[in-house]
Amino acid sequence: MPDPEQGKAVAALDRAHVFHSWSAQDQIAPLPVAGAAGSRFWDYEGNSYLDFASQLVYTNIGHQHPKVVAAIQEQAAKLCTIAPAFANDKRAEAAELITNHAPQGLNRVFFTNGGADAIENAVRMARVHTGRPKVMTAYRSYHGNTATAITMTGDPRRWANESAGHRDGNVLKFFGPYLYRSAFYASTEAQESERALAHLEQQIQLEGPNTIAAIVLETVVGTNGILIPPPGYLAGIRALCDRYGILYIADEVMAGFGRTGTWFAVDNWNVTPDLIAFAKGVNSGYVPLGGVIVSDHVHDTFRNRAFPGGLTYSGHPLACAAAVATIKTMEEEGIVEHAAWLGENVLGPGLRELAEKHQSVGEVRGLGAFWALDLVKDRETREMFVPYAAAGADAAPMNAVMAEAKKHGVWPMPHFNRLQITPPLNLTEDEAREGLAGIDAALTVADSYL
Amino acid sequence: MPDPEQGKAVAALDRAHVFHSWSAQDQIAPLPVAGAAGSRFWDYEGNSYLDFASQLVYTNIGHQHPKVVAAIQEQAAKLCTIAPAFANDKRAEAAELITNHAPQGLNRVFFTNGGADAIENAVRMARVHTGRPKVMTAYRSYHGNTATAITMTGDPRRWANESAGHRDGNVLKFFGPYLYRSAFYASTEAQESERALAHLEQQIQLEGPNTIAAIVLETVVGTNGILIPPPGYLAGIRALCDRYGILYIADEVMAGFGRTGTWFAVDNWNVTPDLIAFAKGVNSGYVPLGGVIVSDHVHDTFRNRAFPGGLTYSGHPLACAAAVATIKTMEEEGIVEHAAWLGENVLGPGLRELAEKHQSVGEVRGLGAFWALDLVKDRETREMFVPYAAAGADAAPMNAVMAEAKKHGVWPMPHFNRLQITPPLNLTEDEAREGLAGIDAALTVADSYL
Repeated sequence: MPDPEQGKAVAALDRAHVFHSWSAQDQIAPLPVAGAAGSRFWDYEGNSYLDFASQLVYTNIGHQHPKVVAAIQEQAAKLCTIAPAFANDKRAEAAELITNHAPQGLNRVFFTNGGADAIENAVRMARVHTGRPKVMTAYRSYHGNTATAITMTGDPRRWANESAGHRDGNVLKFFGPYLYRSAFYASTEAQESERALAHLEQQIQLEGPNTIAAIVLETVVGTNGILIPPPGYLAGIRALCDRYGILYIADEVMAGFGRTGTWFAVDNWNVTPDLIAFAKGVNSGYVPLGGVIVSDHVHDTFRNRAFPGGLTYSGHPLACAAAVATIKTMEEEGIVEHAAWLGENVLGPGLRELAEKHQSVGEVRGLGAFWALDLVKDRETREMFVPYAAAGADAAPMNAVMAEAKKHGVWPMPHFNRLQITPPLNLTEDEAREGLAGIDAALTVADSYL
Repeated sequence: MPDPEQGKAVAALDRAHVFHSWSAQDQIAPLPVAGAAGSRFWDYEGNSYLDFASQLVYTNIGHQHPKVVAAIQEQAAKLCTIAPAFANDKRAEAAELITNHAPQGLNRVFFTNGGADAIENAVRMARVHTGRPKVMTAYRSYHGNTATAITMTGDPRRWANESAGHRDGNVLKFFGPYLYRSAFYASTEAQESERALAHLEQQIQLEGPNTIAAIVLETVVGTNGILIPPPGYLAGIRALCDRYGILYIADEVMAGFGRTGTWFAVDNWNVTPDLIAFAKGVNSGYVPLGGVIVSDHVHDTFRNRAFPGGLTYSGHPLACAAAVATIKTMEEEGIVEHAAWLGENVLGPGLRELAEKHQSVGEVRGLGAFWALDLVKDRETREMFVPYAAAGADAAPMNAVMAEAKKHGVWPMPHFNRLQITPPLNLTEDEAREGLAGIDAALTVADSYL
């Protein structure tokens, strides 16, 4: 039942005491959320929204799945927490289930609290394992907010940190493939793949191969555009890493656990990284959890040599119990297969249909439940609908597009000139069509700016 | 009921799939813990232990407190998670309760997942607020495992990271006060305080005051020795920071939330930092949570300028619900006051009595439920009982001491030459005396090495 007064009280208390992520604190008015279930959440005014963002692309099984809620309640009654140095049944079971779904040869899990510390610890493993300091990451990427992870990030969230001296000096960037806005003057996916790899190999040679510990890639780039690697690219990365003794770290914080229609996104291209960083979908964020899946050869390095990393809540029993229940639920309910089906039969065709109808759509990219509309001012020039890192007045057109989507009860994720559609993996076909109708309306607003 | 077979199965699954913190993976045999309640935990063999470490100094209200368990179960049924950009009732309430107990003028909370990212974000705030890059921290400290936090750490956990290139180049170290092993040739607490401040001021002047964003200090140094600041030291730090436009960041990840017998450890010396980093005790680690308490003047910097940091689970509703219940329970049950009483009347006198009896005890330090025995080979020379960063054969005497404590059903925290005693704050007097008897036996083993 709507309760606007209660909503106002929550909003007031929030503004009095809560400091928000990535924000100018006086320029935000956070919407008080009263509740959520399945693919929807609602405010205190009686408005409800189809969660076409899965919050920050993490509620892969939707909100408040009863099986996971029950598992959390049971574990809370049994044992909320125990230190990392002990063995715990749920921690071990979660690690087993995660490695069951990982590529062959990755059999251990180092648990963290989220994606940023997963990345930090994967990089730590790579540096100690190789004895080399440098880490290479791609422009147009996000890897987290701690010092190494934010330096690895290839989007503007890095900039103010570096200006202020918050930077890991052993991180460098390269250009990844992005055919629609190619850095390599390529005209086909095959050419983009080949040139991106040649460019990267040249950079490795100029940096000094034996100074480089790891190449870290989002398997499918998430927030920065749902950039799908062209055929041969990831196999080429694996080959480059093997050639130069570099570790290949897959950042699957966003792309893992079914998001792309396979358990891990690397499964789409049959490549095996040395380390996989995960978080988010592992337990749909019901309890904070992340981690690194460790290959046998990296694990061997730390059999008789101490791993120089750790954290108080590593392998937190409550978080691991939520992971166990989430993974089993995904298995039992065929949620990953459903995501693949949804992408192929509903979201993909539906978004392509919208692209035909709306001049503001430059490109549709995606797979599974992981989609982006690359919006443009002009399809010929491909000029971005709003500029890179748009803020203030520059961002107004996208804000108007988002406002229209919300008016129609659907909440996608905007990022620069893109509208990204990343709903829960178990979204129904009806919900998908309802949401697409809202996106249709929002794109009509986008068209009006052309 | 004991179930050794189940314990063996948990241990085997752990060794097959779980990668442990700070360890050589083949040199550990993690004890499978079957359950815990109040001040005790037990294994599958029927052995139970008084938790004189509060795990990693975080279960401040003990294990499985029924009020907090119930609050987690209720919140799980209502709303496990919502993204940081929204407003949420439990998030706002937790922030209000935390700031209610913080020094005046600190009215906002930025939530993180744990202590390391709390420290990273406090440093980020200081760097952006001051426009200066450098951060000064003390030798003999621990601040977390992400890149900036581990570089800030003044103990050997930093070393292998720096060797491997995992380092924030804008972090530097200074000597803090530690009269028992004075770096300043001091013979009184007053002299140690005065000289440590003079030393630090000279270092600030030589580094360039306007290159330094923050001085970060554990209010009472935790893992590295329960080092209690001498009279005037923290006031002197506050004055130095004010003189040079440097922010004072208190790391209260371990010392906060009642550990020292006051809500925040700075309350013992009536100093007001610009930022306080917390985690652990805020909800006794029942759900991963940390954060930064932000002063009004630092908050003002980010009113109309975006804070360049954030994370997916910032202000996680389940974690915040656990914090709300924990803080209210601590208020209702007088747990902080009990910790102060316990330190003054039971733990302090009890440990000092043991020190008189056992030649291996060089110094007893502590307050509240936060104590260390500084063990020595010789009281005259104060030679450490085992060397700094002892490992392998060097660590054998401390391992024997720990084994004896465990044999007597008490589990303190060993660190180099110290036995640290950091039980839940609501430990009863009987439990305290029972645990002290076990420590007595362990010290008899220590004495045998002299």
